[in-house]
Amino acid sequence: MEKMDFLIEKIEKEGGVQEPDIIKVDGFINHQLDIKLLNQIGKEFQRRFGSLKIDKILTIEASGIAIASITAQYFDYVPVVFAKKAPIDSPEDSRFFESKAFSFTKKIESKIRVSKKFLKKNENVLILDDFLAHGNATNCLMDMVKQAEGNVVGVGVVIEKGFQDGGKLLRKMGINLESLVIVEKIENGKLFYK
Amino acid sequence: MEKMDFLIEKIEKEGGVQEPDIIKVDGFINHQLDIKLLNQIGKEFQRRFGSLKIDKILTIEASGIAIASITAQYFDYVPVVFAKKAPIDSPEDSRFFESKAFSFTKKIESKIRVSKKFLKKNENVLILDDFLAHGNATNCLMDMVKQAEGNVVGVGVVIEKGFQDGGKLLRKMGINLESLVIVEKIENGKLFYK
Repeated sequence: MEKMDFLIEKIEKEGGVQEPDIIKVDGFINHQLDIKLLNQIGKEFQRRFGSLKIDKILTIEASGIAIASITAQYFDYVPVVFAKKAPIDSPEDSRFFESKAFSFTKKIESKIRVSKKFLKKNENVLILDDFLAHGNATNCLMDMVKQAEGNVVGVGVVIEKGFQDGGKLLRKMGINLESLVIVEKIENGKLFYK
Repeated sequence: MEKMDFLIEKIEKEGGVQEPDIIKVDGFINHQLDIKLLNQIGKEFQRRFGSLKIDKILTIEASGIAIASITAQYFDYVPVVFAKKAPIDSPEDSRFFESKAFSFTKKIESKIRVSKKFLKKNENVLILDDFLAHGNATNCLMDMVKQAEGNVVGVGVVIEKGFQDGGKLLRKMGINLESLVIVEKIENGKLFYK
């Protein structure tokens, strides 16, 4: 992996750690958004996935939306689709592909869904998100692409928590995963990068 | 108001109506996103608000995020902040500005909030959103800017439902409101524009 200096610098300067394992990037990625930084991120995803044929970018609300939208500009303005979170007890709806995710951060199970209108057979889909930890959201997104009989041609995340197992499992499955930054461990409030 | 032909054409071709008053734009604005269209929207907001001093764009998750992020590129990459929705019974948190909104579409009351770190005194804030109907979300966002002692210098929405009272109330308050398209009425499944 290349050193993503612009991103690491930003995390070190404006981010933070909340023990035991929360990486705080709410000042530039998932509450307040630094649009120039997102453009740098988009360009970097283009550098890594740009040789592939990509028909659509799939992400999940809310924090994936800005990343996916800005990045799509570097992929010839392909459509972006964001999966929506629904209450776990919401009735099934045959107009949607549905999958269940467990959020370790929020300690709740939730349902995510995408309208069947927006994921099609044989489409080449790039999945993007801000974080990869246990891989639950990513697995749900992949599951829905599979239900639609599309192809996941790549998964791009801004920050991978290398000390949780999502990344390892995806690589073992042969998924074309690109993490711009991998945090290997958190110790005494400090981040260590791979 | 100028005729926003590119937008009306898109709504007529790819949008739809769900009686009695839902305007369906999930194919390009709030589930699947047409990034080229969002760039046209961003440019148009720039044309309308570009002469103002704007420090920050404020919106609300989820459908406002893409609009605000793409638009910020035309406002010299000012930071975007998106308000988050929280369950109505979530405990108060003094680190956040909070306001309560009632969604007529979803028939639920919800709490929205923004970290106090990201709205500051005397900041000039442009509020952007996809829809303006009864104005609940907009009023919440304005309320939080007020709590922060900032200035709302403008409110921009892609589609105003002119047959509901949000727009009228904002104009009566003297708010600098720009709606790219105003739908005056819906009749027999057809949209009529102002």
